[in-house]
Parts: sequence; structure tokens; C-alpha cells
Amino acid sequence: MTPTYADLNPSPRVLLGPGPSAVHPRVLRAMSTPILGYLDPEFFAIMDETQAMLRAVFQTHNEVTFPVSGTGSAGMETAIANFVETGDRVLVCINGFFGERLAEMASRYGANVERLEKAWGDVFTLDEIERAIGGKPIKLAAIVQAETSTGALQPMESIADVVHKNGGLLVMDCVTSLGGAAVKIDEWNVDIAYSGSQKCLGCPPGLAPFTAGPKAIERLQSRKSKVPNWYLDVSLLSKYWGKERAYHHTVSASLVFALREGLRIVLEEGLDARFARHRANAEQLWAGLESMDMTLHVPLGHRLPMLTTVRIPSYADDMKVRARLRDEYNIEIAGGFGPLKGQIWRIGLMGYSSRRENVTLLLAALREILGEKPR
Amino acid sequence: MTPTYADLNPSPRVLLGPGPSAVHPRVLRAMSTPILGYLDPEFFAIMDETQAMLRAVFQTHNEVTFPVSGTGSAGMETAIANFVETGDRVLVCINGFFGERLAEMASRYGANVERLEKAWGDVFTLDEIERAIGGKPIKLAAIVQAETSTGALQPMESIADVVHKNGGLLVMDCVTSLGGAAVKIDEWNVDIAYSGSQKCLGCPPGLAPFTAGPKAIERLQSRKSKVPNWYLDVSLLSKYWGKERAYHHTVSASLVFALREGLRIVLEEGLDARFARHRANAEQLWAGLESMDMTLHVPLGHRLPMLTTVRIPSYADDMKVRARLRDEYNIEIAGGFGPLKGQIWRIGLMGYSSRRENVTLLLAALREILGEKPR
Repeated sequence: MTPTYADLNPSPRVLLGPGPSAVHPRVLRAMSTPILGYLDPEFFAIMDETQAMLRAVFQTHNEVTFPVSGTGSAGMETAIANFVETGDRVLVCINGFFGERLAEMASRYGANVERLEKAWGDVFTLDEIERAIGGKPIKLAAIVQAETSTGALQPMESIADVVHKNGGLLVMDCVTSLGGAAVKIDEWNVDIAYSGSQKCLGCPPGLAPFTAGPKAIERLQSRKSKVPNWYLDVSLLSKYWGKERAYHHTVSASLVFALREGLRIVLEEGLDARFARHRANAEQLWAGLESMDMTLHVPLGHRLPMLTTVRIPSYADDMKVRARLRDEYNIEIAGGFGPLKGQIWRIGLMGYSSRRENVTLLLAALREILGEKPR
Repeated sequence: MTPTYADLNPSPRVLLGPGPSAVHPRVLRAMSTPILGYLDPEFFAIMDETQAMLRAVFQTHNEVTFPVSGTGSAGMETAIANFVETGDRVLVCINGFFGERLAEMASRYGANVERLEKAWGDVFTLDEIERAIGGKPIKLAAIVQAETSTGALQPMESIADVVHKNGGLLVMDCVTSLGGAAVKIDEWNVDIAYSGSQKCLGCPPGLAPFTAGPKAIERLQSRKSKVPNWYLDVSLLSKYWGKERAYHHTVSASLVFALREGLRIVLEEGLDARFARHRANAEQLWAGLESMDMTLHVPLGHRLPMLTTVRIPSYADDMKVRARLRDEYNIEIAGGFGPLKGQIWRIGLMGYSSRRENVTLLLAALREILGEKPR
């Protein structure tokens, strides 16, 4: 006998973790639209619009700008698989979990990985990166702009110059920042960048916005070996997302519909207004946490606006507090990874989740759980 | 000035191509459900249910059965990347576009690929496969059960025995068959199989159901090298989809919601009833096409029930007919690939698209366009 399964009926979570964030209701509705085939001229028009809006959000003119058919990690793998060959010298800046992941991927693709490490929560200075490169030729340097595991925001100005001077390409992870803080691909001369749909863009997980500039495309064209990863091969993907429209794989119309709607909402709000909203709600959160005598993990100067890390008070039980938030208040926040496990909570205010009422609710719930009287 | 973009408003296409097929309305509604975090216990329960239903549809007890976060091609790449190492002897049976793709991927992962080729539309006999292996040790053999590019259904009985006898694993592509015709992983002793969500399961594209048996998992554990592809690393994915629940990447809750609902519908209908429906509607289509003096490309004995290939009449213009079907009737069918380009049309009756009214509509529209009087 086949068991039967109940209707889908998940609890109405308030998603205040490191992502996914709440999907905007307009995006949810877009996803319930009957789909189009992947070679339908109407779908091509939707792809073109999605790409144009992605360029606006990435602040780039890069022709090669499209969503990869996978999550943020697939975006990361696209950046590594296409631009690394066996034996390449690759510098990875590691100050958190996603820097580690970049190093792991680069090593799997045969790179000679050099690790520039700092404490989880710190950021890198230009001088540190320059010294790590040491004036010797390099193929690629990779850095995370918004480290979701620590809450630190990496300043990106001038890093590309140092990398370019030594013949390298600069890869930037902006999974958590895109749509919530400035991501200036062209101004910063970033060669390759990737993001995720499920953070500050207010879409479901499943697509990884990706962009690559002219230097990167040149490198791709002069590869000695085929890209080992067929699914994420940028040359093949570009032929489908570009003018040729050559079939590669069946892109998910539902997810593209969602991303198009999410991007439309981003541009309607305006980038500056959106960044200001993320910042203002974060500041409310920071003030509230500090008023409860809690300590923020990252100094104000390089603190992410969309993902706050706060030290867990010594009297509080990490798992218990998070379970109570979830089970009694339907609120999701996250704990720490690696060296920060048990040390911090990670609170996301991303995209549609970045709303004043969510800050107020979370702070009030924390006050109740941690035993303080509401003010 | 930022250009503005209109509301999403695609034409109501009747999707009768090789996939994506029409998404079931219940699945569309499931996708508009607000999402859960990837570590929410409620999401774990939904994952468990989805996996149990996938096992039922794959007709397997394989513990390692889950949807890969990508399209069918990502499923194919998962099957190759994890189970092939540099220098491995790999036999690929090629009688269409997707056999070619398997060979291309295996070669990118360093396999020593041997090609067993037949005409597009033919299938392989057991004897042909046995002779190609030639009694010499082999690591992997790969074959497509339902070749979407040709319309041929490969009989799968006993193929695994021949491969196993020579030390190999058998990979089967069932992207187009799963949910529309029998896929008997355990009975056929298939070691590794993958599918797509957007064909006979009636879901949107974006997930690739995947299953691997005990022999395959053993091989994985005795690999000499790490899987180069991090995103599709089955060992890591199994730790998230298995008991450990270790974070790997942010699985798309929306797509899992969709797949769960799609699988629920499959099991409510029942596998046998569902296969019979696909077959009955296909037979209606075949009879209708033949009554118009059109020739079916694949002999009845190994013809796919969910994807029909028909020779384009000499008096008809391939592109014009398809454009008229699309623009005047909102019907999508597809043309041929490679050697069959301009030779055939490909008509899909998959999942929710496999309905009597769609057959009747398509035949009537074809009669109008091809200039015959309606009966």
C-alpha cells in the first residue's frame, strides 16, 4: 500500500536567518504562472529583460550577465570551473566559511591554491592582498564581499588593480550583498562575480546571477583545456543566453519568472532607496540588541547591513533560544559555523525580510525568551 | 532613466514539445507557498516525503535517492562526475543527442570513452552491448532509456548483467520516461539513474531526480581522487539529504514544494494508470497522424509513449508550420536535432500535457495548417 501524504501546509516562518529570506508575495505569484518553452520567442524576451535588469543591479555593462541554473554555490563553481586550469596560481582570501569553500573548489579544479587567512569577522586590507600576491604572476584571486558566516563587509575599492597588475582576474562573491548593498562591478573592475536569488533579491533559491567582464571572457577563449564542468560551461551558456539561442539545458521558466519579478521590484524601489532600507532596519536591530547588553561581533566600520552577527550572551543556550524562536514565534535565525559555532547568532534582514516590523518582533521575542521585561 | 518592464503576461501555450510540459495547476499553486529555511525541521519532513515518493516512482529501495538542484543535464553530470575517474574505460551507447552529451561529459571528466553508435531512432540489442564490451573490464556503461531527440524507447532488461559481469556500473538516463513509462531501477539492476522534473512528472524545470544503488556508493567511497565537481558531489549531497543534515547548498524550497506536489499527483493517479494514460493518448496521436498520411519515425515496437517523432511531409515547411502552430494556436511542438533536423517533428504528451483534448486540438490544428478539410 502506498502511504498518502498530506497537503503542503508549512508554518508561516519569519525568515530572519542568513538566507533564504522571505520571498516577496509578487514573486510567489509570478511563480504560479503557467510556463513557456525554453525556445519560445516570448521566453527569449523575458530572458533579455531579466539580463538587462541583472546588469542594472550588478552595475555593469558586461554582455555576459545571466542567471546560472543552480544556487549561489553553483555560481561560485561557475566562477572557478571556467577560469581556473590545472596548475594555476590562485589566491583565495579566507576570513569565513565561503572563502574556505572557494579554496576547496579551486583545489578540486587543480589550482595551486594559496590561502590568505584572517580571523572570522575581519576583513582584508589592500596592503595584505598586495603582499600575498608578492609581485609574482597570478591567474586568479577570489574574495567574498559579504561573508554570511561572519557578518563582515569587505571593502572592494582598488583590489582589482593589485590583481590585474600581476596578470590575474578578480572573482568576487556577492551572494549575500546583491540587492542589499552596493555591488559596483564596473567601477571596482571586478572580472567575475556571482550571487544568489534567495538573499537580498527576495526570490526563492535556485538561480545564481553571474557576470563576467571582457578580460574574463578573453581568458576563457584562450583556455588550453575544455572546462571540465559541462553544466556550468560559460561559453555554452553564453550561446543560449546570447544571440545564438543555442539549446544547452532546459532553463527553469518558473525561476526566471520569479527572478524577473524580483528584479523588477528591486528597480522599482531603486538601488539607493533599497540599500538605505536595509541599512536603516539593520541599525534598528543593532540598537535593540545593544540595548539588551548584547555585543555585535563585527565592528561598525565593516559590518554587513543585511546579516548581523551578535555574540550569544553567556547565560543563554544557543540551541534552546533558536528552537523557542522557531517553535513559539515562527522566527528563524541561525547559529554560527566553524570557529563561531555556539559563539554567535546570525540574523538576516534581507530583501522582503528587511522590514521594521520584523526587527520589532524579533527584539520583543528575544526579550521575552531571554527573560527581560518588555520595555 | 531606468526602463520599466511590464507585468509578466506570457501567452497560454499548450506545451506539446519534448519538455518542459505543462505544469499541473496544483504544482503551480504549491510553488506560490511561502518558503521554509533549508534547516527547518518542517523542511526536513518535506524532504523525507519527497525522497520516499521518488523511490516509489523510480521503483527502488536505494537510500541515495534525491533531487539534484539543477535540470536533467545536471542529473546527467552528477552521474558522470561522481562515478568516472581519469583514464576509466567508459562505454556510451549513442543513438541520439543525449547519448552524445553523455559521451562529451564523460570525456571532459577524463574518461577513455568508447562509443557504440546506431542510427538516430534505433535501439541497442543486448548482444550489441555485450560485443562492444568485449569481455574486457569496464568501469561504466551509459545508455538513454528514452531518447527525446529520436522518440526511441530502449529495452532495459538484462543490460545491467552484461555490464556487471565485466566489473562496470550501469548509468541510465530516464529524463523523459520517469512518471510516464516504467522505470524499474531495482528490477533492472540499474546502478545510477537520473531524470528531470519538467517532463512526465508535471513540474517546472529545475530539479533532477537522482538515484544510486549500493554498488555505485561503494565505488564512490573507493575513489582515488576527489569528485572535481563540488556542487554535484554525491557524498556531500547525501550528508544533507541523509540523516546528518549537514549544510551543503541552499536547496530551493519552492522547487521541492513543487516536486513533492507533482509526485503526490503521480502516486494518487497510480503508476500503472498513469503509464496507461500516456500510452492511450499517444495511440490516439499516432492514429491521427497516420490518418493524415504522415509517417512515424520510430517503429511501434520501440516507440516512446510520451514523445512521438513524425516525419515532416515533403510538402510542408518545418519552421512555418511550427511558427503557425505557436502564433495562431498557442501550441508548441519541436523540430529535430542533428541528423533529424528538418526531417521530423517532435510531439510530447507528457505529464499534465498528456490529455485527450490536447491530442484532438493538435491534430485539428495540423489539419487546418496542412490544408486538409477538418473531418
